[in-house]
Amino acid sequence: MTTRIAVTGAAGRMGKILIEATVKADNTELTAALVRPGSSLVGADAGELAGVGKLGVTLVDNLADVIDTFDAIIDFTTPAATLENAALCARHGKVMVIGTTGFSDTEKDALLAYQSQIPLCLAANYSTGVNLCFKLLETAARVMAADSDIEIVEAHHRHKVDSPSGTALRMGEVIAETTGRDLKKVAVYGREGISDARARDTIGFATVRGGDVVGEHTVMFLADGERVEITHKASSRLAFGNGAVRAAGWLLTQPPALYDMQDVLDLK
Amino acid sequence: MTTRIAVTGAAGRMGKILIEATVKADNTELTAALVRPGSSLVGADAGELAGVGKLGVTLVDNLADVIDTFDAIIDFTTPAATLENAALCARHGKVMVIGTTGFSDTEKDALLAYQSQIPLCLAANYSTGVNLCFKLLETAARVMAADSDIEIVEAHHRHKVDSPSGTALRMGEVIAETTGRDLKKVAVYGREGISDARARDTIGFATVRGGDVVGEHTVMFLADGERVEITHKASSRLAFGNGAVRAAGWLLTQPPALYDMQDVLDLK
Amino acid sequence: MTTRIAVTGAAGRMGKILIEATVKADNTELTAALVRPGSSLVGADAGELAGVGKLGVTLVDNLADVIDTFDAIIDFTTPAATLENAALCARHGKVMVIGTTGFSDTEKDALLAYQSQIPLCLAANYSTGVNLCFKLLETAARVMAADSDIEIVEAHHRHKVDSPSGTALRMGEVIAETTGRDLKKVAVYGREGISDARARDTIGFATVRGGDVVGEHTVMFLADGERVEITHKASSRLAFGNGAVRAAGWLLTQPPALYDMQDVLDLK
Amino acid sequence: MTTRIAVTGAAGRMGKILIEATVKADNTELTAALVRPGSSLVGADAGELAGVGKLGVTLVDNLADVIDTFDAIIDFTTPAATLENAALCARHGKVMVIGTTGFSDTEKDALLAYQSQIPLCLAANYSTGVNLCFKLLETAARVMAADSDIEIVEAHHRHKVDSPSGTALRMGEVIAETTGRDLKKVAVYGREGISDARARDTIGFATVRGGDVVGEHTVMFLADGERVEITHKASSRLAFGNGAVRAAGWLLTQPPALYDMQDVLDLK
Repeated sequence: MTTRIAVTGAAGRMGKILIEATVKADNTELTAALVRPGSSLVGADAGELAGVGKLGVTLVDNLADVIDTFDAIIDFTTPAATLENAALCARHGKVMVIGTTGFSDTEKDALLAYQSQIPLCLAANYSTGVNLCFKLLETAARVMAADSDIEIVEAHHRHKVDSPSGTALRMGEVIAETTGRDLKKVAVYGREGISDARARDTIGFATVRGGDVVGEHTVMFLADGERVEITHKASSRLAFGNGAVRAAGWLLTQPPALYDMQDVLDLK
Repeated sequence: MTTRIAVTGAAGRMGKILIEATVKADNTELTAALVRPGSSLVGADAGELAGVGKLGVTLVDNLADVIDTFDAIIDFTTPAATLENAALCARHGKVMVIGTTGFSDTEKDALLAYQSQIPLCLAANYSTGVNLCFKLLETAARVMAADSDIEIVEAHHRHKVDSPSGTALRMGEVIAETTGRDLKKVAVYGREGISDARARDTIGFATVRGGDVVGEHTVMFLADGERVEITHKASSRLAFGNGAVRAAGWLLTQPPALYDMQDVLDLK
Repeated sequence: MTTRIAVTGAAGRMGKILIEATVKADNTELTAALVRPGSSLVGADAGELAGVGKLGVTLVDNLADVIDTFDAIIDFTTPAATLENAALCARHGKVMVIGTTGFSDTEKDALLAYQSQIPLCLAANYSTGVNLCFKLLETAARVMAADSDIEIVEAHHRHKVDSPSGTALRMGEVIAETTGRDLKKVAVYGREGISDARARDTIGFATVRGGDVVGEHTVMFLADGERVEITHKASSRLAFGNGAVRAAGWLLTQPPALYDMQDVLDLK
Repeated sequence: MTTRIAVTGAAGRMGKILIEATVKADNTELTAALVRPGSSLVGADAGELAGVGKLGVTLVDNLADVIDTFDAIIDFTTPAATLENAALCARHGKVMVIGTTGFSDTEKDALLAYQSQIPLCLAANYSTGVNLCFKLLETAARVMAADSDIEIVEAHHRHKVDSPSGTALRMGEVIAETTGRDLKKVAVYGREGISDARARDTIGFATVRGGDVVGEHTVMFLADGERVEITHKASSRLAFGNGAVRAAGWLLTQPPALYDMQDVLDLK
């Protein structure tokens, strides 16, 4: 069976990626693509906009007009637009994959209320690989943390201004939670000069910035006689798009509830 | 509580490593060390033999003489010696960590019979990291295999004559078992010249031989937009020794039965 | 001083990259962009075509019309088009960076004849990093080959059908030439089963295929006690564009002659 | 022709390595091994001491007694012992490879005075690979520094208390000298929190500490579209021993003068 997908924010960078991911995936079809009300792009072809060739899917600016054409919607837009879309999807029994960020507490509550009516997936990061790595780190930390030193090395392009990356910090938190440590107390963000020998409980972060590196993370478990390394390398935003499309197909097999990518990937 | 450990084959290369690992581990004490009957080393100090300093443990050649001094025995010797040791350990309720290889079917049956009396651990590879990686690969393959290409790169020293390594092949089998493939049909051991584009189900092995590399394995899950890599690097045989000592401590908390390193590490 | 650059084949994938690289480089300005005669794109803006924003440079299909607007031409097109462009450039004293491939011997001779009139740069690969690596490999092989084992590991996307890559083979040739070996005799393209221990003179190639890997090459010099690795990773075709633009600026400082990227980078 | 080598400080950790390296090298023979005056080891076999099997070379404590048995001496001892050895070697025309550190200025002057009589090699680090990397970095920095971001990642065992390593800092200095930068001003030793985008001239150091890592250094040149990495990995002190033995053989072909490993490897 083919999953019929609607993509919102189709004119944005992430929207185009979502269209590309939908088109590339097996058993998935793009059947609707939304732009913001009044956009000059209404009427253009969604595939041509996304650079994947003509698809015969015309861009529209009103979700109600296409509500019968799709099974699942992938929405990476704004809190206000997402809430409006959610109301309509709940009414019509459409599943939602939500990548929108920046909800206020009130908006979040309003959104989550729809989980009694439809399956909702909400995740900070839709990459399959990153979510898998969180799980691998949990397993590795449980087995190796007592006898190894843990260090996280990450690299990003020269324009990134926050260090370490949010993903690196989340990896550190997964390890800290698994091993009963407090990341605030055990994180080391740089070494210079003479120090004491490394304390076992420490989690070191080493940060590389340069070039056009999309994003690389390696967590090392360094023991006597051996080491284990878990590495994630992103090469494009397509990783997020592919994960969101995967979530859409999976949601259609689930009862109404709130899910995240760990659910989608059966990693809980 | 301290685990009192006996090491057999103390004069061999692995025996010395086991002594070193026992001495370095927390809550563990070497209390007996065995050499083969009639060895000229009887009476020497086990620590001095292993290069870790005098321990006050005298090498003996008869297990019965020291049977009351230890809780667990670590035995990496020969099938005949191990069977003899097992008979005595079963009688005295001592747990056994067995790294001996080359058992005939009859010998194996005889050995396994003792599992009703004492906890036995039997593993092809005692490295914690390698056993962890097998589990990580299972998880990763389950989540990523459908949407990624899997390749295994391994490197060993110039004297290694079998390719790929047994560990690399076992990694391939774990992935094949998890994904319902037949490794014999999907393994690719080298590429040269013009071929078809890569088939998704293929598992590629790339082999590096050179220098004094102890052993490195990387499994790559290569998807569109991202990749996940799981890497194990061995730097010395101490990795095997440490795993065996860990198994010894764990066995003491278990009822009589047959176990392997996946049990020890709680990875089943 | 600003280098004024013309780009040919502007509508092609490499042409767009060349426009982007010209725009991004310091002290460089795109002043002409050519498409094939009769293209429907004549009159459109070169920057908009390349996705870098309006540049005020109108696409034309006749080089003679814009011959006075540029100092250097970067030409990645067809042998016939390049020969025609070269005749005009030679007459007007314009330097040429040529990435066109597929010349017949006669065409090649005709092209090279212009080296007495203008500086020409001709290279199989315009990436600065790859050309640098060839030089690094020469130095490393000279110092380490006698005491180390040399292995080349390369990875490319799943669609690549030739193995090893042309760049990997060229790396092998550089090492073979430096050490007086015959690559045909010493290359090993895969290992399976039981073999003799590695012969020192061998050069091993290990090939990874999968995902969307643009291109990665690592050459390892594996000695006792240490190893040196030289790695090149491509993330996009921009590497070729940047190298070609660099060549253009350098050519303007040179007398008429035939050059390659090793000359441009002062690596001879 | 076989190089006959004397090793001093034979009872120390480095002395044993030097004996092992001498025995393993082609066209090289250990013909004398020295221990400190009065050592209880006088009379023992040098090979048995170093764990490489009986060599028939008896340990002595007086260099004069064996001065006619060797061509080159490798001396990693103390300033006082080295100066005494140098006086004797100069008188008898023996070449010296010196790894001793900690000379006072006066001692250094006294030592260097012998360069008019015999070939002397003096180096901070005798590893062939590390010295090669310094040269590779110089070439790479010359070609790529203007268009790339340079980052140095190093890893060492958990007991190392200085960060970054001396070798990493020296790598940074080689790059800074080649590109006309002041390392003190451009070095960045860690990143945490929000900062400006990376400045091109910066040289970043990322430090990993853990396990039993002997020593790994990677220098990355990160450009748009590509990167080049130069990596050195040490697996044992044998790398230093092999380099010193190589220096000994080379010195015998040279006129009296002061040399370093860059001379030995013909990297100047």
